[in-house]
Amino acid sequence: MAMAWATKLFFIFLLSIFTIDPISSHKQHPLDPLSPEELNLTQTIVKDSFPSSNNTTLTFHYVGLDEPDKPFLLSWLSKPTNKPPPRRALAITRFNKQTHEFIIDLANRSIISNHVYAGYGYPTLGIDEQTEAIQLPLTYDPFIGSIRKRGLNLSAIVCSSFTVGWFGRVRNRRVVKLQCFHMNDTVNLYLLPIEGIQIIVDLEEMKIVEYNDSFKVPVPNSEGTDYRLSKQKPPFGPRINRAAIMQPDGPGFHIDGHTIRWVNWVFHLSFDARVGPMISLASIYDSEKHKYRSVLYRGHISELFVPYQDPTEDYYFKTFFDCGEFGFGLSAASLVPLADCPNNAVFMDGYYAGQNGIPVKVSNVFCIFERHAGDIMWRHTEFGIPDVSITEARPEVSLVVRMVATIGNYDHILDWEFKPSGSINIQVGLSGILGVKAATYTHSDQINEDVYGTLLADNTIGLHHDHFLTYRLDVDIDGVDNSFIKHNLITKTVTDNTTARKSYWTVVSETAKTESEAKIRLGLKPAELVIVNPNKKTKPGNSYGYRLIPGPEAHSLLLEDDYPQIRGAFTKYNVWVTPYNKSEKWAGGRYVDQSHGQDTLAVWSLRNREIDNKDIVLWYVIGIHHVPCQEDFPVMPTLSSGFELRPTNFFERSAVLKVIPPKPVIWPNYSASP
Amino acid sequence: MAMAWATKLFFIFLLSIFTIDPISSHKQHPLDPLSPEELNLTQTIVKDSFPSSNNTTLTFHYVGLDEPDKPFLLSWLSKPTNKPPPRRALAITRFNKQTHEFIIDLANRSIISNHVYAGYGYPTLGIDEQTEAIQLPLTYDPFIGSIRKRGLNLSAIVCSSFTVGWFGRVRNRRVVKLQCFHMNDTVNLYLLPIEGIQIIVDLEEMKIVEYNDSFKVPVPNSEGTDYRLSKQKPPFGPRINRAAIMQPDGPGFHIDGHTIRWVNWVFHLSFDARVGPMISLASIYDSEKHKYRSVLYRGHISELFVPYQDPTEDYYFKTFFDCGEFGFGLSAASLVPLADCPNNAVFMDGYYAGQNGIPVKVSNVFCIFERHAGDIMWRHTEFGIPDVSITEARPEVSLVVRMVATIGNYDHILDWEFKPSGSINIQVGLSGILGVKAATYTHSDQINEDVYGTLLADNTIGLHHDHFLTYRLDVDIDGVDNSFIKHNLITKTVTDNTTARKSYWTVVSETAKTESEAKIRLGLKPAELVIVNPNKKTKPGNSYGYRLIPGPEAHSLLLEDDYPQIRGAFTKYNVWVTPYNKSEKWAGGRYVDQSHGQDTLAVWSLRNREIDNKDIVLWYVIGIHHVPCQEDFPVMPTLSSGFELRPTNFFERSAVLKVIPPKPVIWPNYSASP
Repeated sequence: MAMAWATKLFFIFLLSIFTIDPISSHKQHPLDPLSPEELNLTQTIVKDSFPSSNNTTLTFHYVGLDEPDKPFLLSWLSKPTNKPPPRRALAITRFNKQTHEFIIDLANRSIISNHVYAGYGYPTLGIDEQTEAIQLPLTYDPFIGSIRKRGLNLSAIVCSSFTVGWFGRVRNRRVVKLQCFHMNDTVNLYLLPIEGIQIIVDLEEMKIVEYNDSFKVPVPNSEGTDYRLSKQKPPFGPRINRAAIMQPDGPGFHIDGHTIRWVNWVFHLSFDARVGPMISLASIYDSEKHKYRSVLYRGHISELFVPYQDPTEDYYFKTFFDCGEFGFGLSAASLVPLADCPNNAVFMDGYYAGQNGIPVKVSNVFCIFERHAGDIMWRHTEFGIPDVSITEARPEVSLVVRMVATIGNYDHILDWEFKPSGSINIQVGLSGILGVKAATYTHSDQINEDVYGTLLADNTIGLHHDHFLTYRLDVDIDGVDNSFIKHNLITKTVTDNTTARKSYWTVVSETAKTESEAKIRLGLKPAELVIVNPNKKTKPGNSYGYRLIPGPEAHSLLLEDDYPQIRGAFTKYNVWVTPYNKSEKWAGGRYVDQSHGQDTLAVWSLRNREIDNKDIVLWYVIGIHHVPCQEDFPVMPTLSSGFELRPTNFFERSAVLKVIPPKPVIWPNYSASP
Repeated sequence: MAMAWATKLFFIFLLSIFTIDPISSHKQHPLDPLSPEELNLTQTIVKDSFPSSNNTTLTFHYVGLDEPDKPFLLSWLSKPTNKPPPRRALAITRFNKQTHEFIIDLANRSIISNHVYAGYGYPTLGIDEQTEAIQLPLTYDPFIGSIRKRGLNLSAIVCSSFTVGWFGRVRNRRVVKLQCFHMNDTVNLYLLPIEGIQIIVDLEEMKIVEYNDSFKVPVPNSEGTDYRLSKQKPPFGPRINRAAIMQPDGPGFHIDGHTIRWVNWVFHLSFDARVGPMISLASIYDSEKHKYRSVLYRGHISELFVPYQDPTEDYYFKTFFDCGEFGFGLSAASLVPLADCPNNAVFMDGYYAGQNGIPVKVSNVFCIFERHAGDIMWRHTEFGIPDVSITEARPEVSLVVRMVATIGNYDHILDWEFKPSGSINIQVGLSGILGVKAATYTHSDQINEDVYGTLLADNTIGLHHDHFLTYRLDVDIDGVDNSFIKHNLITKTVTDNTTARKSYWTVVSETAKTESEAKIRLGLKPAELVIVNPNKKTKPGNSYGYRLIPGPEAHSLLLEDDYPQIRGAFTKYNVWVTPYNKSEKWAGGRYVDQSHGQDTLAVWSLRNREIDNKDIVLWYVIGIHHVPCQEDFPVMPTLSSGFELRPTNFFERSAVLKVIPPKPVIWPNYSASP
């Protein structure tokens, strides 16, 4: 062997990073995202439905797969020789200041329905209209005057668009607020806000409809804000040695279209303009039962509520719903090999419909890689048997699916991690740039008022805010009908002298019969939270289950009747359970921009539907209160949070007992490369 | 270059796994653990202090470094040309049924003090005496009769020793309870308990002093309990592909004796018989201030309280204090290369004094490795600047120090993870074997009583229990005098129409003046918890700080006046802060075996000492309630928890902004090895 490889060509591993093209090489799966061809077809059909003279006012705000009915899909999956569910598109468009919802049959090239939505709230913003809007001030005389008055350089100005929220007043038009920044010699615009200028743009008139220059505050100094490597000055560091994962037998996963098989898992991965990565039909192979068993029908982030905590004029409205207002898929970053994902990652592209309905490709929108983090899958050393020494240990490996959504300043790293033991870890990493405001202060001793944040640098206040990432998890624990159990840990007092103990805790289980019984604020009562299939039991009689292992708890601290909280009411609890309802996908509602909170998870749940032994959906809110600190400046080191779904009496025994430890990797000596 | 390495010898990387010998090659550091020579010397000095005829009754229960006084050590560190603090040993021994505490001056070979401890509680159990004790039943006629009566095979019996706890009764002798197991054809003894036999052994008489055979329950079937690879039968799997980390420039860390330098960190790592790994003098290099700045004077696990929740005769007493009763260092496992630690790990040995005082070597007691988990250190994509596309991202790397303590059935994986950003992650992984009891049940339908656990398999109940890992963190945030701040997040109601908002939250900071103000049960009040140096401020005027980012919360559910809870009262809260006191190292007290809870963190704290701008110690309790499930059988996949210490206004800005992304690793093609 030694001689054999020495004669081989050398190659640079970097070149072997490759991208899976999801559309070329496989039979379409009913849950596949719309292909570029399907997006184009949808665009054509919708466009053709409107009078041609007016087509310039037609804009596309969401185009995605109209999910097949779940029973239909499940029945097809059980007998895939039957005809698959029809491919349908859901297109949300604006035309003549009206919101249209189209359902398109792609095979028949027909419109199944065209519904005009007349309620409160608007669809996800388009990228093109925002790009156009943020340039308006640069030719708007009052703004040019404001910039001159401040002694700033117009050519260094970049504006950003922000959703306006809802504060009790109905606007009846699609508007955004603009905030402008004086970038100067940096690209870190967010740290250089120009205060005191309020600009409102009507997106459909595409003009500034309100303008106000109310006060002046110095723009912070740009020094030290640029984060580009090329702009850094010595001393560099800390210095990191390079490293790479070598997998002589290749990766342990196989991607066929959008279906990923790895070790004992199989799942479908699709890309959605609104929520980004969607994991579907995740099943795990049970080597005792000799079959794949379902865990998750569909899982994805549903909404991200980011309320800033500064009530002043320029900031009070910053109460964003990033998925519904801006779109996680629309905001997906192309992942950078060797930086966003390790050398053993494989990449996939994604497509969304642009504002004109034409497909836009996001290269490397997902990466998939095996994580070898040096963790231990399981181990035991036996010291207790005289004259015998036993240690058995297995190294951990997991499969990670990653996407990054960058909504303006913040980068959200969304990881789905699958383990051979059956666990699914759902993690989010926060990085990117803080939302700051400019102030006259240069030292905290000067501050005698609430500035709603932390003084991070001269004239720079990092504003208090929250991140509430709400996940929708349509769990199907070995079947569709599931229940949600709270195994409450209850202290028992012993008074009858039957034991020397005065107390112990035990489990008092409670099945949530209706939605109201499943709303949980973590941290108040010790409990194990389990989704079970009450119809299927292990040999000892335990219901098949998956346990929710929460991360650190945070819930919204806003008053319940405050406008942003009405819209984000689903952040009052960390855990919710609802019966499956195809239309209940987006926790903040379908039309979140300027919504009045009438179509949220919290409102749906008021019906208090039955959830026992039903097809249920688990909702989990990862909450992070963020008091900025100087280390978050000028770019924030990743802050992580998440939760675990862990099999709990799902298997008869550990699924990883019989893992054979991988053979050691043998490789030739090598010299350091240049 | 290509030709150059092709002519080199190939080597198998496995062979390059090497161990650092901490005693041969460096100048001794005042915090180094006692060397084998020093352990031997201590043994000789202590032994010589007793009349020689009686020496057989002399046993050693703890020998470790008597820490130099902190001010002395710090002053020496600031001027290392001065004479270092004297090397002293603390030896806790038993002689003629008395507990002696010796302080030995190692340079002068003299006894500084020899104190007889006459209070409640006994020192850590010795390994030899337990080994002897567990064999007593095998030649004890009543036990032999009990085994025969049950139809079991005496040669398949293995017993284990368990501390007896304290339940209001004073025993006045060092005793352990034995529980015996019928291993049969497995090595997984813990899953095969023999119920109904209570055995108490006096360790100093080394005889059975109480014996009772009260009831009979079938021993569970051993089938499927063995976890050794050699005993597994097909189908194997899930199948894991092999992988290795390649670091062409070698590891990024350097070990000199017990001092580890990595990227921007330097710290001292020592091994202690009682608590295992101790991280000392952890400092991080500040590239703006051009110096190392202190973070942690000393950090280590202090105690692990594991109360089982079965009040019945055979189990009620199982309320263990693993560090104080059994010793995490004494229970350290030799780490297995490529299974417990990845291929790029470096190993260190440790030494403890055996029961006879003679040093015992634990090979590979620590491993140290760089973790390349595929995470993102920081990133940002800038979509907001027209016609410009920017993405900057840096791959994460961290340094992990690992030890595994296996106390009987449970394996505790202790990780200290350092990040270039300044974060320290303290993680624990739980693996190993459940504590179970045998029962007549084979199906949960048969159960009409509280069995204090989960039916896992035929006749096998996994018992409810908790793990409370209490860490002692002597933080020195850029200096010795620190304060503990609760930044409470308080909802503010707006009623004056100055804003469209009705509410927001803000930070109301509260400095804990005394110990009682720093006792915190997590989850009840939203707050950021920060240790600051109130005497040193950043340029904007923020106190240098490190924030505690807790993991999921759990606290003890036992009644406060229950005996085990009196002993483990430090698990009532998750966070405690005390003033530094050299003698307050072990949260459960110095003599935990049969303790009455008079020397715990909770008792020390009742003095309610001042902690503002003092040398303070942060205590953090990782709590895990454990309701066993079938997947924990026969070996538990690792369950992890932990917390983070994160710089918060410690640096003027992100410490990792100027990290240069490592160059890609280039390597030749290779073929799969056999």
